[in-house]
Amino acid sequence: MNLSDIEGLRSKNPIVVNYSNFVTPFLVANGLNAIGASPIMSNEGDEATELATIASAVVVNLGTARKEDEEFINQLCQTANQRKIPLVLDPVAIGATKYRKKLGLELLKKYHFDIIRGNIGEIAVLAGIDWQTHGIDAGDSTDKAKEVVQKCAQRYETTVIASGKVDYISDGNRVVKILNNTDLLPLIVGSGDLLSSVAGAFCAVVKTPLEAAQIASLVVSCSGEAAAQVLEKQTLPGKFMSELLDQMANITSKQVTETAKVEEA
Amino acid sequence: MNLSDIEGLRSKNPIVVNYSNFVTPFLVANGLNAIGASPIMSNEGDEATELATIASAVVVNLGTARKEDEEFINQLCQTANQRKIPLVLDPVAIGATKYRKKLGLELLKKYHFDIIRGNIGEIAVLAGIDWQTHGIDAGDSTDKAKEVVQKCAQRYETTVIASGKVDYISDGNRVVKILNNTDLLPLIVGSGDLLSSVAGAFCAVVKTPLEAAQIASLVVSCSGEAAAQVLEKQTLPGKFMSELLDQMANITSKQVTETAKVEEA
Amino acid sequence: MNLSDIEGLRSKNPIVVNYSNFVTPFLVANGLNAIGASPIMSNEGDEATELATIASAVVVNLGTARKEDEEFINQLCQTANQRKIPLVLDPVAIGATKYRKKLGLELLKKYHFDIIRGNIGEIAVLAGIDWQTHGIDAGDSTDKAKEVVQKCAQRYETTVIASGKVDYISDGNRVVKILNNTDLLPLIVGSGDLLSSVAGAFCAVVKTPLEAAQIASLVVSCSGEAAAQVLEKQTLPGKFMSELLDQMANITSKQVTETAKVEEA
Repeated sequence: MNLSDIEGLRSKNPIVVNYSNFVTPFLVANGLNAIGASPIMSNEGDEATELATIASAVVVNLGTARKEDEEFINQLCQTANQRKIPLVLDPVAIGATKYRKKLGLELLKKYHFDIIRGNIGEIAVLAGIDWQTHGIDAGDSTDKAKEVVQKCAQRYETTVIASGKVDYISDGNRVVKILNNTDLLPLIVGSGDLLSSVAGAFCAVVKTPLEAAQIASLVVSCSGEAAAQVLEKQTLPGKFMSELLDQMANITSKQVTETAKVEEA
Repeated sequence: MNLSDIEGLRSKNPIVVNYSNFVTPFLVANGLNAIGASPIMSNEGDEATELATIASAVVVNLGTARKEDEEFINQLCQTANQRKIPLVLDPVAIGATKYRKKLGLELLKKYHFDIIRGNIGEIAVLAGIDWQTHGIDAGDSTDKAKEVVQKCAQRYETTVIASGKVDYISDGNRVVKILNNTDLLPLIVGSGDLLSSVAGAFCAVVKTPLEAAQIASLVVSCSGEAAAQVLEKQTLPGKFMSELLDQMANITSKQVTETAKVEEA
Repeated sequence: MNLSDIEGLRSKNPIVVNYSNFVTPFLVANGLNAIGASPIMSNEGDEATELATIASAVVVNLGTARKEDEEFINQLCQTANQRKIPLVLDPVAIGATKYRKKLGLELLKKYHFDIIRGNIGEIAVLAGIDWQTHGIDAGDSTDKAKEVVQKCAQRYETTVIASGKVDYISDGNRVVKILNNTDLLPLIVGSGDLLSSVAGAFCAVVKTPLEAAQIASLVVSCSGEAAAQVLEKQTLPGKFMSELLDQMANITSKQVTETAKVEEA
């Protein structure tokens, strides 16, 4: 893993085209901007192919996916695969409705995704493993989590990030744990969406999806840790959101090297 | 009114499904998250029934309502009524266009809403009372306001919150005034939307809509007052928005008990 | 140019109806609110005519324009022209896709826009001039920029704002440079969208589009400069966003008079 890709991204300024949900696009766009990427959001079918053609990476977020946008989504994914540029899936609440599950599984059947980023419950749905979800915090049984990300990665021949108190990352073979984190990240609705798009951005400049996933996870987690430290770990979602963007705009490979806690699981 | 429901909500973590407008969903989602609820936003017809089935409460905001979303809205409302879970209406700018007024009145005809939350001008439109609106601040003639909320509540057999400098709340019988407030709340576009969804969340854990409405109003107003105090009442919309979320994330029944100014009107 | 229109806008509280993109409407709405305007966003065709009828100004932003919204956009523009109220176009990324370019040029053919606000690259596309874009910062060759804004303004008989490190403003005849600015504005995704809508608001209360464009540019630029000064020019997008809104809510004609750097180009 070459953390100097954090600076590399700033100099390359990759364009990340997002099919985003309508709740968090402002956070995601500003987060991408903060790390040095150029965000584009759209859902107009007629521009999908062209946007995917100028993109350095494409991210599909199912948070508020709609039937009428499926043409857009499909053309985005198809063009990304044809151009062999990174394609990332965020299967938000994939288990919540039949529509969303059907759409997510269809996309995974038709296209190759380089990274899937979800919480452990969402990843478990994709892996076909029964996971006891307890609200948003989906628990952290290491062995089970390891099995879930590995199986999901193998099934879809992809790299998986299951983010939470610990981020589990697997390419189907290795499983890596990112132990950096803060209880404050879940205070922000959309911190997961942000990580998915950041993972897309790093995929555009990093050699392998497994490395990109780790660097993206570290950038968000270490920025979160630093922001939490500034707030003395108080539960302050407004100030944390602002501070997180500020930290992301200033994070360096040096800082991440000094604070990263990465383990094989 | 049992203010310990403020802590009760945090422990129960109710799911609030929102048909939101596209301007303020991020604020509303983060505000719901701050008080301990779990927000879901969508407008895909195919998921409406399932989402309303996992919901603890449903909130319909007409701020940017569209014809193409009406199937979604109707299925959401129908399922909420069938399941007898709380249903809240925010009739944003109901008097501004024929389309919006028609849609709002149709929904009120077909479904039972537990709470309607609007400004006094919007509530007056629903009550069929002529109200002189002076821009956003719709004046505060107590007697007239009392008549408006009571008549609206009676007409639709619901509980009404007319929020403003003073929040007037009525179940058609009693009228309660919440005197807590701050001039800074109108600085935030979406503070009304936020109150509507917070009211939905409290409806899910509080015995009666009248109590839920009062607690929701107090949570937002007292958080607003505390935030304004931190800012020494300066006109600072950016910092106020951030501080409001921070206060909402930390508000306790003790704090509200000590600061609440509730009167019969 | 009469800077007391800054206070004039606050007292007149013009309604600005926006066809906005779905990424930045919350920022734009809160920015409009901060300067004393009343924002309305919608994309429902059935309300377009009525909304444009109560509007003091209309702003069309193509950032996430969709075919299904074209009826709404057209009725908005048509009504604005019929009522002779200000109409503003923000041709976001007009050169990025055929769809967007076609839509933008069609609108410019059918309707008269009082102001077009874009970055220099977007304005160059409309002017039909080849402009070497280097990422987001599109360079600042004064002579070329002058030619671009002048030609665009002449071609569409409009007033043009090309915003960037320097804002170039032209009514086709004069070209004015606003030298106030800060490197921090591009940290915010949506600062351009915000300027476009602020220009719409000032068009509603200022005599000529050329004056309105200058005052709008000064309000955003001087607020940005003041916010950057508070942050000691550090790269802090979260705090800058918050501080920018705070500055906009408090900006006065006196402050702008003392800090404005306006030159004929």
